[in-house]
Amino acid sequence: MSLFDTNGAIFQESRRGPQNNGVAIFGVGYDGTASFRPGARFGPDAIRHASVGLENYSPALDADLEDINLRDLGNLEIPHGSPEPVIQRTHNAVREILRSEMTPLMLGGEHSISTGAVRAVAEKYPNLLLIQLDAHADMRAEYLGDAHNHACAMARCLDVLPSKNLLQVGIRSGTREEFALMRHTNRLVAANMEELARRIAPHEGPIYLTIDLDVFDPGVFPGTGTPEPGGIAWETFASVLSVIPAAQLVAADVMELAPDLDPSGCSSVLAAKVVREVALMLADS
Amino acid sequence: MSLFDTNGAIFQESRRGPQNNGVAIFGVGYDGTASFRPGARFGPDAIRHASVGLENYSPALDADLEDINLRDLGNLEIPHGSPEPVIQRTHNAVREILRSEMTPLMLGGEHSISTGAVRAVAEKYPNLLLIQLDAHADMRAEYLGDAHNHACAMARCLDVLPSKNLLQVGIRSGTREEFALMRHTNRLVAANMEELARRIAPHEGPIYLTIDLDVFDPGVFPGTGTPEPGGIAWETFASVLSVIPAAQLVAADVMELAPDLDPSGCSSVLAAKVVREVALMLADS
Amino acid sequence: MSLFDTNGAIFQESRRGPQNNGVAIFGVGYDGTASFRPGARFGPDAIRHASVGLENYSPALDADLEDINLRDLGNLEIPHGSPEPVIQRTHNAVREILRSEMTPLMLGGEHSISTGAVRAVAEKYPNLLLIQLDAHADMRAEYLGDAHNHACAMARCLDVLPSKNLLQVGIRSGTREEFALMRHTNRLVAANMEELARRIAPHEGPIYLTIDLDVFDPGVFPGTGTPEPGGIAWETFASVLSVIPAAQLVAADVMELAPDLDPSGCSSVLAAKVVREVALMLADS
Amino acid sequence: MSLFDTNGAIFQESRRGPQNNGVAIFGVGYDGTASFRPGARFGPDAIRHASVGLENYSPALDADLEDINLRDLGNLEIPHGSPEPVIQRTHNAVREILRSEMTPLMLGGEHSISTGAVRAVAEKYPNLLLIQLDAHADMRAEYLGDAHNHACAMARCLDVLPSKNLLQVGIRSGTREEFALMRHTNRLVAANMEELARRIAPHEGPIYLTIDLDVFDPGVFPGTGTPEPGGIAWETFASVLSVIPAAQLVAADVMELAPDLDPSGCSSVLAAKVVREVALMLADS
Amino acid sequence: MSLFDTNGAIFQESRRGPQNNGVAIFGVGYDGTASFRPGARFGPDAIRHASVGLENYSPALDADLEDINLRDLGNLEIPHGSPEPVIQRTHNAVREILRSEMTPLMLGGEHSISTGAVRAVAEKYPNLLLIQLDAHADMRAEYLGDAHNHACAMARCLDVLPSKNLLQVGIRSGTREEFALMRHTNRLVAANMEELARRIAPHEGPIYLTIDLDVFDPGVFPGTGTPEPGGIAWETFASVLSVIPAAQLVAADVMELAPDLDPSGCSSVLAAKVVREVALMLADS
Amino acid sequence: MSLFDTNGAIFQESRRGPQNNGVAIFGVGYDGTASFRPGARFGPDAIRHASVGLENYSPALDADLEDINLRDLGNLEIPHGSPEPVIQRTHNAVREILRSEMTPLMLGGEHSISTGAVRAVAEKYPNLLLIQLDAHADMRAEYLGDAHNHACAMARCLDVLPSKNLLQVGIRSGTREEFALMRHTNRLVAANMEELARRIAPHEGPIYLTIDLDVFDPGVFPGTGTPEPGGIAWETFASVLSVIPAAQLVAADVMELAPDLDPSGCSSVLAAKVVREVALMLADS
Repeated sequence: MSLFDTNGAIFQESRRGPQNNGVAIFGVGYDGTASFRPGARFGPDAIRHASVGLENYSPALDADLEDINLRDLGNLEIPHGSPEPVIQRTHNAVREILRSEMTPLMLGGEHSISTGAVRAVAEKYPNLLLIQLDAHADMRAEYLGDAHNHACAMARCLDVLPSKNLLQVGIRSGTREEFALMRHTNRLVAANMEELARRIAPHEGPIYLTIDLDVFDPGVFPGTGTPEPGGIAWETFASVLSVIPAAQLVAADVMELAPDLDPSGCSSVLAAKVVREVALMLADS
Repeated sequence: MSLFDTNGAIFQESRRGPQNNGVAIFGVGYDGTASFRPGARFGPDAIRHASVGLENYSPALDADLEDINLRDLGNLEIPHGSPEPVIQRTHNAVREILRSEMTPLMLGGEHSISTGAVRAVAEKYPNLLLIQLDAHADMRAEYLGDAHNHACAMARCLDVLPSKNLLQVGIRSGTREEFALMRHTNRLVAANMEELARRIAPHEGPIYLTIDLDVFDPGVFPGTGTPEPGGIAWETFASVLSVIPAAQLVAADVMELAPDLDPSGCSSVLAAKVVREVALMLADS
Repeated sequence: MSLFDTNGAIFQESRRGPQNNGVAIFGVGYDGTASFRPGARFGPDAIRHASVGLENYSPALDADLEDINLRDLGNLEIPHGSPEPVIQRTHNAVREILRSEMTPLMLGGEHSISTGAVRAVAEKYPNLLLIQLDAHADMRAEYLGDAHNHACAMARCLDVLPSKNLLQVGIRSGTREEFALMRHTNRLVAANMEELARRIAPHEGPIYLTIDLDVFDPGVFPGTGTPEPGGIAWETFASVLSVIPAAQLVAADVMELAPDLDPSGCSSVLAAKVVREVALMLADS
Repeated sequence: MSLFDTNGAIFQESRRGPQNNGVAIFGVGYDGTASFRPGARFGPDAIRHASVGLENYSPALDADLEDINLRDLGNLEIPHGSPEPVIQRTHNAVREILRSEMTPLMLGGEHSISTGAVRAVAEKYPNLLLIQLDAHADMRAEYLGDAHNHACAMARCLDVLPSKNLLQVGIRSGTREEFALMRHTNRLVAANMEELARRIAPHEGPIYLTIDLDVFDPGVFPGTGTPEPGGIAWETFASVLSVIPAAQLVAADVMELAPDLDPSGCSSVLAAKVVREVALMLADS
Repeated sequence: MSLFDTNGAIFQESRRGPQNNGVAIFGVGYDGTASFRPGARFGPDAIRHASVGLENYSPALDADLEDINLRDLGNLEIPHGSPEPVIQRTHNAVREILRSEMTPLMLGGEHSISTGAVRAVAEKYPNLLLIQLDAHADMRAEYLGDAHNHACAMARCLDVLPSKNLLQVGIRSGTREEFALMRHTNRLVAANMEELARRIAPHEGPIYLTIDLDVFDPGVFPGTGTPEPGGIAWETFASVLSVIPAAQLVAADVMELAPDLDPSGCSSVLAAKVVREVALMLADS
Repeated sequence: MSLFDTNGAIFQESRRGPQNNGVAIFGVGYDGTASFRPGARFGPDAIRHASVGLENYSPALDADLEDINLRDLGNLEIPHGSPEPVIQRTHNAVREILRSEMTPLMLGGEHSISTGAVRAVAEKYPNLLLIQLDAHADMRAEYLGDAHNHACAMARCLDVLPSKNLLQVGIRSGTREEFALMRHTNRLVAANMEELARRIAPHEGPIYLTIDLDVFDPGVFPGTGTPEPGGIAWETFASVLSVIPAAQLVAADVMELAPDLDPSGCSSVLAAKVVREVALMLADS
């Protein structure tokens, strides 16, 4: 019935586009291992709702959601409790998306789920480079006996990444051991753009961009479970995007929005703008 | 793709049912004339979100949403600002729903919109009885020069109701003139169940039930623009429903949830439970 | 300039009325001794703001604010910190109001301030009966060394009440000693209307009504510093008012609204409705 | 250093009492299987914080926390994610408490954890009667494949209860199957006090009282993950306590406070008052 | 009665000053066309309330509100619903203020109202330069059929501006068409101070400064209906003010504070500080 | 009982360390003179709660709380109302801490209390340098007749500081007189690091660091009673710490967190990170 429109969200509007060879957005509302404050389960729906207040057009990219193929697949149906079955379902879902020749863009949900998506993408692109934007190193082997806690998210991603090629950006919290590890492996800690470009340049293959939204400063993104003072502003994020070659980007995720922790709704709006920019870049690949 | 489920809301799950001869839920997120606090525009989506936390089964009615035909048509696309075009679109939408042999169940949005739906239903059923659950009389001729302000909602409904048959329940706020009017026309003010049943009994024709959720006490329903202390509890509402003959119910609306005014989310849950009960009754007609 | 209106609040609109022989509303935004949660300082302004959403007409009293003399004097200018200077200023203010032949209606602020107003009223009416609606006995001699803590509010009122005539209604929290005291002096604990009427009847002189809003159940009035489960509903409050002879009422206060503790704003609306009813009763004296 | 006091909370003050033969309060801040809204993990600390605003004395029981042996053991250290290890640790903890001749009073956390405590108590008292106050039947065999979801809490408790003696009070939500089951087993659905007393009377042995706080109406207790309109008021709860023989009460838990869902803090205060009353009853056993 | 002071707000204190030849503050609490989130109707009163926490003295301007003529006229009485009558009343009000030889400083309310004030000021000063601080271009011809939607605010201002002299600062959101338009007309997009000064210099006539507060970053100003990440900080705003010649400033407005969207109240405080600085500049003209 | 852990907060975990020659954290939850918004009384407990989400390790200092002696003494037991007895108790407490050879680190509570701690530290170290990070000068002789209002906090500290050696950093609000005073005494206003280092260098004696958290920008620290736009970011704060010689630091306080004003909890997290960094520096002295 043409009178009705689901709700005017810019992502849902785009459902009318063709169903193949486009960007496939989907949500995984799981937050079961959050060690401090849960709530990331409501992230995907909050991003859709907040997108109503944004334009379809990105001045930074000079591109418009109206001009690309974008499908919102809704949220993955998941059990709460243990993370393993959720990671498994995520793996299956991303594999199906890739089989349909679509480009996956996952909305979280907590960061521990990324390993399921990274695994599916790395199965297709073994020499995948994983770029992580994050406040926390997330490199613990386990946390209180749980290897799939969100404090271990990147350690688990490395497990399923044949290339072991991980570039960490924005990290400002971790244990002494994690920071020591980051020094030895010579990974990038601060978001220096020239340095970042220099690190990415040698890699000419496919890239997976995993964004833990807590890489942003809590001042501009308070709606997350474990905020860490001293993060990046929007302008820095835009600069990081500008040095990532869109043509190499084959998948992405945007994780850890816990919308109810920010009653102003601004965290959800920022997350939606992140998703808009990343979706436009993915459509370019 | 069968892996995905929009979000588990009990109303949206039901979209899979047949498309005719069922109950058609739709939202009208308009709140432009609210004289005190706006926010009812987000009511329909909040009801869908809150329905995730409810069961499909109603012990009071011994009926289950899984067993009925229920379709969620999404929200009407509307301009904000002046109410007239919104009322017009609502009228068109309900007329189309009735043409499809479906039973309309509208989610508001402010009460001033009901006149659009009542008009369409009364065109089909001229001897319609309108039962209004409300804290406010809403019988003003105009308010600050605007005849479509939500303080005039019922006056406007009477304008389009050939039978002039209005039964008011729960009113506890109004001007001296409105209360005088209610006394002369001998309409029901308090929610006495035997009295209410006695009033409904002579009417054997179709019934439209319009629920301004502020009929509930602000203690159990704080999420509304103009809360009025001294309202009814859930049990009283359930009693009111029990004396309305479901077989005669041909349309209904559930209005004035302003979800962001109640950060606990309980107002949205109560509204969703109201919608569940009313939908089950409508399916019975 | 006639185009402008301060903000449409029903109390402020009434400022246009005559300046003598009417009801004088004023606020005392002090909350310095609150032992649990402060915030009552914002009570008076929140009551004014919330009054915008109410009608001027009271169906229960069949009376209208438009028909009475009512002046809003604004808030008393006070220092924060120690309560003594605030009580002194309150005493002075109420004495001046009484000299102007107006009837004082104070908005709090915490309950410890009432002693200043009661003292001024009792100087004019030595055989004053004080009716206290409250969840807490407030009869401690001192609290952590402070005789003017709000836990001692009524003990301090008794100090300045020559008649020692105190009627306590709704008390449900106190120390064992306070409850023992209430039993010995045979004061009313629960809100039984017939009993209450029987207690008031012998007293034919002037009455001061002091309302600690936490007498209401936290379900309908969450916006207060020390909520106590098990309080009264609006209907019970209306019944209490109905057994107090309006003609004998010479002063009143409405205390302990801490509006920011209730983001729904419903506590402020309830407090504003309490003020409307009490103002209409005072205008009748 | 005697100058300092942790924070004035009435439970923590009581830590100074003797360490044996008293009531042992402890928290289990787990909320991993919550199907709708998480946040019960912060319940135990919120109850302690809110207790600052309450008196030690209960007028209903004429008893005072100052006069009993009460120890607050703090919170159980738990991993988040899967519920099984948390239930195991809870079982161990309660077994240790019982070995120390103390009476356990657990603060939740979600209801799925109760099975750990019930198992330990039933090992000591095989003919244990379990009284459940709850809005939801919680009798599902499993939920989305998880047998330990909080929707299965009571089914799991029955698994470890040799007597199979369960009395359900206040249930108003469930599937058709759950309601059918409750009818067949003739368990109590509504909170009728005489009926409840009649049901308890034949049982002269030990009683475990498990309270899912969502048994209260969302109006007075909005701070919970799955609120269900139509619940009980404080007075009804007090009546239920009055028909439970304190001398037979050997253990209890108070579950499902999600404090951040109620910014007014009133839900935490109500939960603290529940804990005070139950602690005083347990001390009497 | 000299004991009382309305509430200590720095703007209201200034009411005692002379009534002519000063700055006239007034509010227009309209938000009827807000396309995403309403709430700007409460902006004016929230600015007054928040001003209590600020000093009268501005270190940046070395000027003090105590030393200028400032009157707060209260809020314009308006109907909600359609914007046209509100714009008309605003036009009348500003015309009257200018006739009284006062300088208008309007507090919003949504940006669509500015056209009413600009029209009145441009009638007096035909060669008026309009400087717009804003996140959004607001240059649409219409939005969902409504020419007075707040997304068209500047297009409507240009309609009534004979000079067609508009300088846009801080714009970071718009349609492709709006950005194309801004490029062709060579208007300033980013807030480069030297560039901005160079643009203003040629204009020696009167200036109207219209501030949509969403020009600020949502991190420092979350309390607005359509926040857009990537905005300016306070320091940038102060720099912009420093390159605007105060002597040429003949009118200003400060729009789009929706205070309830920011429970911390910091957005209201920032808006109040903006008003203080602008009022001090206007007093200098 | 080794199964239990109070709550996993990083400060409370450290209680297990030795009891002498370490850093002693304690809270003073007083906010009685707050002129705008109270709530700092809940600061100390909120800092402890928020520390759960932080790591023990500081990358900036390459130091770990696990490696130092740190004791949390809980909160000082205080009466509310007048500030004098609270200042007296604070003085006593810090004197006892210093006698135990521990280094005091006080958590506020409002800034007016610092004078009690400064006095005790200055009695031991007469040539103490006091470094104040603050948005407000706090140099008034009195405020509304009260010499101990928090607007006079630093004037009162100077009273008990024999050296009169005060270095002010970050001040951006005050009266004309306060700013004139700061110019004459040539104190540092803005946070220029080289200038700040140059000012500290000549002083080789002991340093007391008093941090009014409102020195931070309200964007990153909205949870305070009198926010002032235009403050510092985390990075600036870290730079200030880097030019203060840790070996000379003998005491510190972290004041004016009012946690309930920031529902996101991020202000509490920032305050906890400030406390972590300062505690690690104090342990180094």
